[in-house]
Amino acid sequence: MIRYPTKKNTYETKKQSVANRGQTLESMIDESNLFYLAQGQAVVHKKPTPIQIVKVDYPSRQAAKITEAYYKTPSTTDYNGVYQGHAIDFDVKETRSKTSFPLKNIPVHQIHHLRAVKAQGGVAFLIIAFTLLDEYYLLPFEVLEYFIERAKKGRQSMTYQECVTYAIQIKPSFRPTLPYLKAVDEYVKSQKKSFKP
Amino acid sequence: MIRYPTKKNTYETKKQSVANRGQTLESMIDESNLFYLAQGQAVVHKKPTPIQIVKVDYPSRQAAKITEAYYKTPSTTDYNGVYQGHAIDFDVKETRSKTSFPLKNIPVHQIHHLRAVKAQGGVAFLIIAFTLLDEYYLLPFEVLEYFIERAKKGRQSMTYQECVTYAIQIKPSFRPTLPYLKAVDEYVKSQKKSFKP
Repeated sequence: MIRYPTKKNTYETKKQSVANRGQTLESMIDESNLFYLAQGQAVVHKKPTPIQIVKVDYPSRQAAKITEAYYKTPSTTDYNGVYQGHAIDFDVKETRSKTSFPLKNIPVHQIHHLRAVKAQGGVAFLIIAFTLLDEYYLLPFEVLEYFIERAKKGRQSMTYQECVTYAIQIKPSFRPTLPYLKAVDEYVKSQKKSFKP
Repeated sequence: MIRYPTKKNTYETKKQSVANRGQTLESMIDESNLFYLAQGQAVVHKKPTPIQIVKVDYPSRQAAKITEAYYKTPSTTDYNGVYQGHAIDFDVKETRSKTSFPLKNIPVHQIHHLRAVKAQGGVAFLIIAFTLLDEYYLLPFEVLEYFIERAKKGRQSMTYQECVTYAIQIKPSFRPTLPYLKAVDEYVKSQKKSFKP
């Protein structure tokens, strides 16, 4: 990573617009999934946001129009699918911090869900982005779980350095935008070794 | 199956209410998934219906209220998850016919999706119900595909007898309501044998 010798803010703005074109992590993952699907490399989809529908109008000869509805809390993660015989299941999280990844924005139901997926032999993880650094990591569920346990007694986050050490880096590219399946390969390969931070 | 010597309609009504308590196939699957999840036997969820949200109100201090939205066509099946290391993916279909299972209500995007899942090593199938017979079957994707190919040249359905012969029956029970994982076991076991109707 080249660090331009300019002012802090200029550097960040420039870097963001050049590197990932200001895309959110979610749109990078969606694009990558479309690419992987078209190439026959994996079948991974984002789940729709669950909506509680209260009122629907049926104007004659037209499509049903929902006129009152509310967002519901999802009970799972946002992404799942199948890749070379593996059931994969993950969520994506962004942080603007450059020094740590906060754990408080991971809802407890997602942790339960990822734990259950892993127990069934699925490949469970988070994809996290340090957006201001333009750095991306696959965080294996067992690593996440270790730091969540630690958070019960103290520090509410993983440090950036802990992410570098225990997560698997994903380098953005052109096609796919975020080739996260390479990191999945690496994770699957290493999964039989036990995790000891 | 005991056939009561009553009039046709009486028999059907009675049978439905006693056997599956008038439940839809979907609610039977949802109940079974909750049971399997609670027992740690599988993690399978129904995907939310995708909704195109057009307008949202944010009344002060209250939850966001969606005031204009439309149903979108899903690009996948309704159910997926992980079971003993297998990525499973399926949709559910009901018919009130007693003699055949019509193929026309399987959208083409679901066929593409199931084919892609199978190509990645997932376990792809339909669960079909002959509601008036109170009979349930797991229809492996390769069997479905064979009959869809046949439908291009002629018959637009599988006969009931073909379902009995080539699909795997699922007997309703108490807990779970529809123990379809037993049929998945059988399907997975037989998957290496080629399908020849």
